[in-house]
Amino acid sequence: MSIAELDLTQLKWDSAGLIPAIVQHNETNEILMMAWMNEESLRRTFQSKQTWFWSRSRQEFWNKGATSGNVQHVHEVLVDCDQDALVVKVIPEGPACHTGEWTCFYRNLAP
Amino acid sequence: MSIAELDLTQLKWDSAGLIPAIVQHNETNEILMMAWMNEESLRRTFQSKQTWFWSRSRQEFWNKGATSGNVQHVHEVLVDCDQDALVVKVIPEGPACHTGEWTCFYRNLAP
Repeated sequence: MSIAELDLTQLKWDSAGLIPAIVQHNETNEILMMAWMNEESLRRTFQSKQTWFWSRSRQEFWNKGATSGNVQHVHEVLVDCDQDALVVKVIPEGPACHTGEWTCFYRNLAP
Repeated sequence: MSIAELDLTQLKWDSAGLIPAIVQHNETNEILMMAWMNEESLRRTFQSKQTWFWSRSRQEFWNKGATSGNVQHVHEVLVDCDQDALVVKVIPEGPACHTGEWTCFYRNLAP
């Protein structure tokens, strides 16, 4: 992956300059989490090959795993037909969720 | 799944009353599409066991596959740790994408 190949202007950023990023395990296809990226966090993701997001609550960048060690190594980034959502395929070093669960989607809404 | 078991007040709807819904194939775990649900479209999804979304561009409900026949049969709905995103696990009758591709995420952002 090369930053030079990216044409970020083709993406449809929302009114806050964000796009939803669905993080998926590259091998099992399990959905690990969903977070938000702005243009700069997407650039950082490509440059570092680790996931970088924009925290809407804290209004700051966050590199997933920077404190916990559970970084996500990025293999590829897919974009959908109308260019308003991303799938980031990763190999994670550990759990995605702050609760310690492997995926943030560990609960059934109506079990 | 029973609508009575749902506690929709626990979900964090955005300022437009919407929540992102990631549609995933129940067997292959492939991510098929991402769309938006409001409370009523989530109720309709549970009641019909087919996916119902809210179209932000057309400002109307849409039942995926109503015209194409490519309906998505809902098996379960997962919610993430902070209750602001859903994963809807489905068995689709056909392609998810209006382009005819099986998934909307058919392109690599930086191939």
